[in-house]
Amino acid sequence: MNKIVTMGEMMLRLTPQGYKRFAQAECFDATYGGGEANVAVSLAHFGQNTVFCSKFPANAIGDAAIAFLRKNGVDASKIVQGDGRLGIYFLEKGASQRPSKVIYDRANSAFSTLQAEELDITGILEGADWFHFTGITPALSQTALDTLLVVLSACKDKGITVSCDLNYRNKLWSKDAAKRTMTMLMSYINVLIANEEDVSDVFGIHPANTDIEKGELNISAYKDMGKLLIDKFNLEKVAFTLRGSISASVNEWSGMLIDKDDCFLAPNYTINIVDRVGGGDSFGAGLIYSLLKGKNGQEAINFAVAASCLKQTIEGDVNLVTVKEVEHLMHSGGSGRVQR
Amino acid sequence: MNKIVTMGEMMLRLTPQGYKRFAQAECFDATYGGGEANVAVSLAHFGQNTVFCSKFPANAIGDAAIAFLRKNGVDASKIVQGDGRLGIYFLEKGASQRPSKVIYDRANSAFSTLQAEELDITGILEGADWFHFTGITPALSQTALDTLLVVLSACKDKGITVSCDLNYRNKLWSKDAAKRTMTMLMSYINVLIANEEDVSDVFGIHPANTDIEKGELNISAYKDMGKLLIDKFNLEKVAFTLRGSISASVNEWSGMLIDKDDCFLAPNYTINIVDRVGGGDSFGAGLIYSLLKGKNGQEAINFAVAASCLKQTIEGDVNLVTVKEVEHLMHSGGSGRVQR
Amino acid sequence: MNKIVTMGEMMLRLTPQGYKRFAQAECFDATYGGGEANVAVSLAHFGQNTVFCSKFPANAIGDAAIAFLRKNGVDASKIVQGDGRLGIYFLEKGASQRPSKVIYDRANSAFSTLQAEELDITGILEGADWFHFTGITPALSQTALDTLLVVLSACKDKGITVSCDLNYRNKLWSKDAAKRTMTMLMSYINVLIANEEDVSDVFGIHPANTDIEKGELNISAYKDMGKLLIDKFNLEKVAFTLRGSISASVNEWSGMLIDKDDCFLAPNYTINIVDRVGGGDSFGAGLIYSLLKGKNGQEAINFAVAASCLKQTIEGDVNLVTVKEVEHLMHSGGSGRVQR
Amino acid sequence: MNKIVTMGEMMLRLTPQGYKRFAQAECFDATYGGGEANVAVSLAHFGQNTVFCSKFPANAIGDAAIAFLRKNGVDASKIVQGDGRLGIYFLEKGASQRPSKVIYDRANSAFSTLQAEELDITGILEGADWFHFTGITPALSQTALDTLLVVLSACKDKGITVSCDLNYRNKLWSKDAAKRTMTMLMSYINVLIANEEDVSDVFGIHPANTDIEKGELNISAYKDMGKLLIDKFNLEKVAFTLRGSISASVNEWSGMLIDKDDCFLAPNYTINIVDRVGGGDSFGAGLIYSLLKGKNGQEAINFAVAASCLKQTIEGDVNLVTVKEVEHLMHSGGSGRVQR
Amino acid sequence: MNKIVTMGEMMLRLTPQGYKRFAQAECFDATYGGGEANVAVSLAHFGQNTVFCSKFPANAIGDAAIAFLRKNGVDASKIVQGDGRLGIYFLEKGASQRPSKVIYDRANSAFSTLQAEELDITGILEGADWFHFTGITPALSQTALDTLLVVLSACKDKGITVSCDLNYRNKLWSKDAAKRTMTMLMSYINVLIANEEDVSDVFGIHPANTDIEKGELNISAYKDMGKLLIDKFNLEKVAFTLRGSISASVNEWSGMLIDKDDCFLAPNYTINIVDRVGGGDSFGAGLIYSLLKGKNGQEAINFAVAASCLKQTIEGDVNLVTVKEVEHLMHSGGSGRVQR
Amino acid sequence: MNKIVTMGEMMLRLTPQGYKRFAQAECFDATYGGGEANVAVSLAHFGQNTVFCSKFPANAIGDAAIAFLRKNGVDASKIVQGDGRLGIYFLEKGASQRPSKVIYDRANSAFSTLQAEELDITGILEGADWFHFTGITPALSQTALDTLLVVLSACKDKGITVSCDLNYRNKLWSKDAAKRTMTMLMSYINVLIANEEDVSDVFGIHPANTDIEKGELNISAYKDMGKLLIDKFNLEKVAFTLRGSISASVNEWSGMLIDKDDCFLAPNYTINIVDRVGGGDSFGAGLIYSLLKGKNGQEAINFAVAASCLKQTIEGDVNLVTVKEVEHLMHSGGSGRVQR
Repeated sequence: MNKIVTMGEMMLRLTPQGYKRFAQAECFDATYGGGEANVAVSLAHFGQNTVFCSKFPANAIGDAAIAFLRKNGVDASKIVQGDGRLGIYFLEKGASQRPSKVIYDRANSAFSTLQAEELDITGILEGADWFHFTGITPALSQTALDTLLVVLSACKDKGITVSCDLNYRNKLWSKDAAKRTMTMLMSYINVLIANEEDVSDVFGIHPANTDIEKGELNISAYKDMGKLLIDKFNLEKVAFTLRGSISASVNEWSGMLIDKDDCFLAPNYTINIVDRVGGGDSFGAGLIYSLLKGKNGQEAINFAVAASCLKQTIEGDVNLVTVKEVEHLMHSGGSGRVQR
Repeated sequence: MNKIVTMGEMMLRLTPQGYKRFAQAECFDATYGGGEANVAVSLAHFGQNTVFCSKFPANAIGDAAIAFLRKNGVDASKIVQGDGRLGIYFLEKGASQRPSKVIYDRANSAFSTLQAEELDITGILEGADWFHFTGITPALSQTALDTLLVVLSACKDKGITVSCDLNYRNKLWSKDAAKRTMTMLMSYINVLIANEEDVSDVFGIHPANTDIEKGELNISAYKDMGKLLIDKFNLEKVAFTLRGSISASVNEWSGMLIDKDDCFLAPNYTINIVDRVGGGDSFGAGLIYSLLKGKNGQEAINFAVAASCLKQTIEGDVNLVTVKEVEHLMHSGGSGRVQR
Repeated sequence: MNKIVTMGEMMLRLTPQGYKRFAQAECFDATYGGGEANVAVSLAHFGQNTVFCSKFPANAIGDAAIAFLRKNGVDASKIVQGDGRLGIYFLEKGASQRPSKVIYDRANSAFSTLQAEELDITGILEGADWFHFTGITPALSQTALDTLLVVLSACKDKGITVSCDLNYRNKLWSKDAAKRTMTMLMSYINVLIANEEDVSDVFGIHPANTDIEKGELNISAYKDMGKLLIDKFNLEKVAFTLRGSISASVNEWSGMLIDKDDCFLAPNYTINIVDRVGGGDSFGAGLIYSLLKGKNGQEAINFAVAASCLKQTIEGDVNLVTVKEVEHLMHSGGSGRVQR
Repeated sequence: MNKIVTMGEMMLRLTPQGYKRFAQAECFDATYGGGEANVAVSLAHFGQNTVFCSKFPANAIGDAAIAFLRKNGVDASKIVQGDGRLGIYFLEKGASQRPSKVIYDRANSAFSTLQAEELDITGILEGADWFHFTGITPALSQTALDTLLVVLSACKDKGITVSCDLNYRNKLWSKDAAKRTMTMLMSYINVLIANEEDVSDVFGIHPANTDIEKGELNISAYKDMGKLLIDKFNLEKVAFTLRGSISASVNEWSGMLIDKDDCFLAPNYTINIVDRVGGGDSFGAGLIYSLLKGKNGQEAINFAVAASCLKQTIEGDVNLVTVKEVEHLMHSGGSGRVQR
Repeated sequence: MNKIVTMGEMMLRLTPQGYKRFAQAECFDATYGGGEANVAVSLAHFGQNTVFCSKFPANAIGDAAIAFLRKNGVDASKIVQGDGRLGIYFLEKGASQRPSKVIYDRANSAFSTLQAEELDITGILEGADWFHFTGITPALSQTALDTLLVVLSACKDKGITVSCDLNYRNKLWSKDAAKRTMTMLMSYINVLIANEEDVSDVFGIHPANTDIEKGELNISAYKDMGKLLIDKFNLEKVAFTLRGSISASVNEWSGMLIDKDDCFLAPNYTINIVDRVGGGDSFGAGLIYSLLKGKNGQEAINFAVAASCLKQTIEGDVNLVTVKEVEHLMHSGGSGRVQR
Repeated sequence: MNKIVTMGEMMLRLTPQGYKRFAQAECFDATYGGGEANVAVSLAHFGQNTVFCSKFPANAIGDAAIAFLRKNGVDASKIVQGDGRLGIYFLEKGASQRPSKVIYDRANSAFSTLQAEELDITGILEGADWFHFTGITPALSQTALDTLLVVLSACKDKGITVSCDLNYRNKLWSKDAAKRTMTMLMSYINVLIANEEDVSDVFGIHPANTDIEKGELNISAYKDMGKLLIDKFNLEKVAFTLRGSISASVNEWSGMLIDKDDCFLAPNYTINIVDRVGGGDSFGAGLIYSLLKGKNGQEAINFAVAASCLKQTIEGDVNLVTVKEVEHLMHSGGSGRVQR
């Protein structure tokens, strides 16, 4: 059992039931999610010792978010509760040609005010093997960025492997600001996780001949992009998720892992989407698990893609599958026969 | 902002939840719909000044139907409330090889007793650019037909463009009766909307080499059929919806617009059906909007088909999309990527 | 109207709503099912006189199971109520690459203690044309097997046709035990219903070149397997369901009927799965109905496959379709057009 | 086990969930009910052989109504299916000072067209001990009244005891019409069931010093009213329900049985109302059961009141309690302790 | 029909279903509310021309709030949409000894940034008879207060009657700040609505011998308090709501109207609470309606209390009753008999 | 923060929604509960270090039960997973005169097979201040009793205070068996918790002049009964819950604590019941908390009764209140005013 630490914002997610539009919603399904929290939950279900750090409001909504993490096996004892609010996002589930829609209401969250002094960083990182964050955290506020830097420094001192999912959000900051900050943060990072759109938005690098909106992918161009990032930022590994959007109901899904020497492409899954949110996070969790367990490049990317394929058949932000279930998919190929 | 008036019956729609059969239903989702009302709601969401005329019962069910229209931005102030009932239809949603089923319980509705004297026709048509009705209204009762004729005459006097969706319902009248009446009404109509089955049932005209039940379509035959209708009834335009039923879960969907000089075929969409009811009505609304806004033939049919494609991904009878959303589909091709 | 008797265990089925995983379930949809009971319900909806024999607990849960049968038109008057519990099974509905999961909690059911003396066997079989059971009953307990043997002897005496669905459940008994007992029971059986996995598990016979997990089927090998079973056990007919699992969301579905002289393959249906549980049972019911009504081999298998295709578009264990609805599918090919 | 026959209209009942008003309802709970059907269901749960006669539409809604009856143990095999609709009523549940509201949409029901020739009256009445109807049936249509008269004549010929619940509905007929018809029907009736408001509306007789709206009752005046009815119409027994409306949430509930010689008043229950609809029908069923079982006057009225008290703690129109549960209330006094 | 204008913040209200605590909520019922909006909705259901002014975010959540108002008959055409968010409040419904809990998440709402220049004040007030606001608006932000002052000045100029509900919220401002600002605003106000706790918190005035927490009221002390406020601020009328909290499930409810000459106490209602939020707002609406219609003091307070009694039997923030329903309660006394 | 250990069976609880009877249930609300687990959850919400020991099945249902405990802050790390099932109980919620009903389906649970060797008893009891169990555990199986005895011996050795809630269940064992075993176990117990019915059933001791079914209590007789138990079994304290059943909807609730010297009676609460299950368990938890925190006798019983009063206003088996909420009730007296 490895110890993984993730830090970031967690939000209350509110979703109209079924395929209802916002205007039709008389009630919202409530769950909780956020890039780093989703990774933590996924790793906890893989049986790892997972610690999630954040700041939540000291009220019943903050308590409910903590209960959600505890229920999913995440160690929530390092979460600070204080002033501020829990960010909220509204999700309208798309279908066929109608895209899903997200409305963020996340400003002024408790997490965006979290200062390093509030955290028991020594306790949090003690015995940790891995630290994970996403590009959302530095985008939230200067305070969040400062706190992140303190933690990243401590990770560097302790030799803890660090992964980052670029996760560019244009509602939070400009491409310029993202480029400046993320470039600076790259020096702390061992493993970079991204999709090509993020790389293009943040670093201005993008693969040739790929039209995201149309869902066409050019695999060899991705490989080049990965090598370029490794060289530029002295990374150990870069992993890409590869999503081919056929419609809001059906997606192609795969991933690629690139290191200094090699490039590994996972098999592709055609997914009847139940809930595609958190696909990238569950991919990150699968990758972290695989690399911590010493899997080789091909095994690692295959596991990460299979895990995140399953996520997209599950309601909510988080992946609720065991290692055994991921491995069953890898071996069965996904025929979906009833398991009695 | 144009002013469009529609007049017709609105019904309470009762649907078992999810894919439950009628016999399994312990509760019914309740919404409201009807051919002309659906067109009105769609146009209101396109930002137009839309007036719906009808007669509802003077009770809480009639009030709820009015509230539904108001919520959706339709001007319901011209609706009369009085004796009679609100028609009801029960809808069982099909899946895969199991077809959807509709049970009508619409006899003796308040609307079927609506007399022209009860309506403020002058106020209703003041400043109106367009009047729309469907073949259901004249089929409901002699009174409804008489009232419709008064309104159509007034439209003719005022030079208001009139569109009609044939909408043949064999539970309401015979093909002979429909032919006789609809032929008479054609002289008031500028734009005819139909599918080929309606044209065949009502006018005995049908395209060669097309088997509806099997879902095969013959495009060139449709063109000929359109021209024939234009000539025969001195119409400005004829528009056809083109549905290819692969199963209750997946449909092909397109449309064609024919005028005296030309014929425009829209791109085809393969739709994972959420709720196919109201597809034709949202097509009509898209067409009316496009023509009022002066779009050319190809743009108009493309807009109408994209709008009605989206409708079929939305629960209920009515289309809840903005012009911007329709245009996004036209430009993106429907890859359904999340919109944050 | 024929009289068909089935006997077996019925369970309370508990299913998380929608695509929720067990861990997400705050509530379970409750219905009832069991191999033989599902056949009974299906035949009742086909308008036949159908008697289901079992033993239920003498409490409100047992009463509810009886009410479920009565609601569906099954004659439940021969069911005994006494000590013991109603078995339960938990079903998690899969999607796409995530398989459905079943957790059985069926030990010590009232039915597993049912003794022949408790049953009014004379009344039950009076005027019966057909008796059906599955391989689950003899696997439940020695008592259940003993009771079954008494009934099967009586059927033989009275010349009642007997069908058996192999339905091997590895949680209930070993392959060896199943082989021993089912081989013994074959002497009472006229029509054997199975899928190839059951035949392989129970009799060690399996078709060449077929990989269940991958969903590939080899039709000619099935024919040979059927002939071999007919010869070995002196059966009249063998029927196979042929399921091609593309994913938990999409299945291929067909079936084959083999008799001493011939072999009939039904058309294949690609099904968007709503609920695949009970697919085999509804196939059995369709076959029994067809054979009782004197349909020829091709008609019989076509009806059985069409009926069971529809089942998989319906929530719950049981098939809620009429003969007319099955025949409509057989003729329309499943285009799923709305029926008004 | 006695055989009781009831005949009347059954309606689909649509109720907003919880305490929602009609205007707030996005979905309606669906159940079935009607005065005579409610009596039948109640008696079936008391273990009696109960036959309900009616005419339902030959569609899936009619089928669902039949399934509802079968589920509840009522013999529905004598129900005719044909043209027409199933009546509907909408019920909004009140709370505290806000009264419940009922909107009827029952015109032109299949039952209102039921002719005596359509019924197997001989089979229906064979072996019957009791026939029950309400004042709603003759109010629905001349046809319904004519059919009722044929059945009542047959009851008289066969010496079957007849009970009638006055159930005056001012939406269906005038007081004058009710008086004329109900007076004529009294000659067929042995046991009359009513509340004082019905007696006042139909026969113009009412107890002194009673203000219904205010919920005040004058017991001795009821006794006089009962005696007067017995004398006037040569009845065997008259039974009154005594409801004291404190609010929509809390009611006082009792009843009184009067025969030629005596008068029996039941204990009073203060009920926290779950669903008060069908209170009178369950009272009628309790009385019929008691009288058929030969209970004395005091026992009979106590049983009827206890049974109907329990009904009002149960959702829906019908009473789902056993004789044992009624007797437990009679003995325990209603302390409501958990039964394990 | 009078024209009433109200201005204020509207929030999305999120409520766990039934009596669930926040920690148990898997979904939240969603509705909309806010002091001034609730008054507007209530008056619209009384048939008045009601305009609600506010600023909502320009997104689907803001659109849904507008749709809610339109559905309820409020003129929402003057609402501005722009940057910012819609405030949210979470409501946990209490029961018996467990109090309801409210968590506010309302900071940085679009309304708190609304500037007078954004509003069409001339159009809004044209023909208006009454303007209503609450003490929440000036507490939200300096901008909101500035805007309010512009509107109040315009009202004074036009001679529009102004009412204010004190509505002190200690989460928004201190008692000192409230006292300073509200004292200043009193010069614009004709009718003051409050409960005694607000008067005590804001003006430091409170009735003798009253213990809110214990639910004891001293009526004569209220009268003195009212007179004192009228004299001090030169008001026309002061109205108090009088709530006696027996428990979260049962409340006593009444009200008092005081003018320069007289004092009117309404009858008391003991309410089985369905949803007590918005009780004060519906009281205000009832009072405004009564005074506009020229009712005398006793009639006015009786109507206001009866209207607000009914509100508390209805789910959500807003009162969905007609004038006729309020009058029925006033005449019947609240016995809650079914209305057919 | 004290450490409290509880050990026992936990069950899946299945409840029809609202006030539906079992026969009406189309779905069951699912939660988890059991006497000792309920105590553990309550104490965890009081902020204590609470360990629950048990054995659950090694399947997704067992996992869900663990997730439930973790969500509620209980340390579930000592729970063993293995063969067997999770016991189930079905609960039908009563209303007014209709009592709640419980159907147990708990035989052959994993817990009933738990052997002492499977438990890490040293780790479990390390640092523990208190151990709690109920009379259900020894009733389940000889194995469970044996395991309990091992744990109780260890508690005695370590000087851990032991409390026991008698909780007699007549479905599990006879009064004789209970008397024999519970008498033997008394020697390990410091604090006995019971209601008078349990004391009567298990020890044949009962207070004079008390009729449970009628809801009458005789306080002084309880005091004598408590003293008698203390003397007979050398106990430190005896605590009684005092429930006065007015109906299934309204209960009186209080409690009494008796020690060698004194007797303390808590205030009485009249409760509008939301869910009365677990009332006794939350009383036990309140008492354990109070005694651990050194409260005096009157404070302790007041806290225990207030805590358990609140439980009965909360859905499910477990009490979800904080110490602060209990204290608020103790000080406010339960007027239930909204907390903003």
